[in-house]
Amino acid sequence: MHQKRRKRADERRAEILAAAESVFAERGYRAGSLAAIAEAVGISKQTLLHHFPTKEHLLVAVLERRDLHNLGIVADMGLTIEAMARLVDLNLDWRGLVHSYTVLSAESVAEDHPAHEFFTTRYDRSRHALADSLRAQHGDRLPGGLTPDQAAPLIIAVNDGLQLQWLLNSRDVAIGELFRAFLATVVKGEPPAST
Amino acid sequence: MHQKRRKRADERRAEILAAAESVFAERGYRAGSLAAIAEAVGISKQTLLHHFPTKEHLLVAVLERRDLHNLGIVADMGLTIEAMARLVDLNLDWRGLVHSYTVLSAESVAEDHPAHEFFTTRYDRSRHALADSLRAQHGDRLPGGLTPDQAAPLIIAVNDGLQLQWLLNSRDVAIGELFRAFLATVVKGEPPAST
Repeated sequence: MHQKRRKRADERRAEILAAAESVFAERGYRAGSLAAIAEAVGISKQTLLHHFPTKEHLLVAVLERRDLHNLGIVADMGLTIEAMARLVDLNLDWRGLVHSYTVLSAESVAEDHPAHEFFTTRYDRSRHALADSLRAQHGDRLPGGLTPDQAAPLIIAVNDGLQLQWLLNSRDVAIGELFRAFLATVVKGEPPAST
Repeated sequence: MHQKRRKRADERRAEILAAAESVFAERGYRAGSLAAIAEAVGISKQTLLHHFPTKEHLLVAVLERRDLHNLGIVADMGLTIEAMARLVDLNLDWRGLVHSYTVLSAESVAEDHPAHEFFTTRYDRSRHALADSLRAQHGDRLPGGLTPDQAAPLIIAVNDGLQLQWLLNSRDVAIGELFRAFLATVVKGEPPAST
């Protein structure tokens, strides 16, 4: 009985997180209300607050869910160029997630934003992890000429920037192809395949 | 007398635009209120609405002011790599502008956002203008191996993505140096200077 109740609570949490993701994606974190999220799930705001005591808790849970998902892929494949390109491909099927991530990361730049610390730490860690991984694979200079410490922030920047352009115009921005061409030139120092 | 009144109106508009920029930067477009902007200028909301009839008018005026500013630089220098790197340097002194641009462009991804059309068109135009300029300078393939149609969205993406990382951590992200290293590798096909 107790197990069954926990299972139901887990399912409810998952429903709330999915709803929060789309509400934040649609309206941004500041404008997206707990009331709207509760309504989307079909529960009262009181019930929502039982699962997530504050809006900030809910936001961090949404972001961590995305990171867990991505980390799973990287754990399976290693932090390789192929894994990075695969993540970009997968994101194409998760438009709402890419949307909410883009809006929330931009909003979080304000120092009093509840996710400011989360994103600052997350980007610092990602840069270091990626630079370390590139250094382990290629030494102090990549075949394309950049150092690992230069390439890491640039690879992350290209991914974020292409996502913005793709969200604005999915028809014209071939994000997967562009990201692979970039990695071929910058990391491998090879001219990309013609398109 | 009439001229003097117009001059005063122009100054007032400039004050309102500057205040709108920082309020939008701090709170985002949706959450940034006309009341807060009017208060920052020290005028009534009624007076503000005399200069900008809707919040949407104000937003587009803020964005156009930034574009005009940047276009002036490009007109002086041509759409060269040096001009692009110079724009990145200049942005370092305009943190509020970079901040509001980053937040607004991300928010504008929602199709019902008042700046959605503005940003979609702006990115399409920038990609085409930059690709044409790269083609005129380098032909159908850049020295680094990418085509102009690949390089244009990637250059714009790197700029946007680096701005986000720089806003989150200005101490560790040397945006000007990283952007130049990227341009050297991707456009010129030269290994960047060691750092």
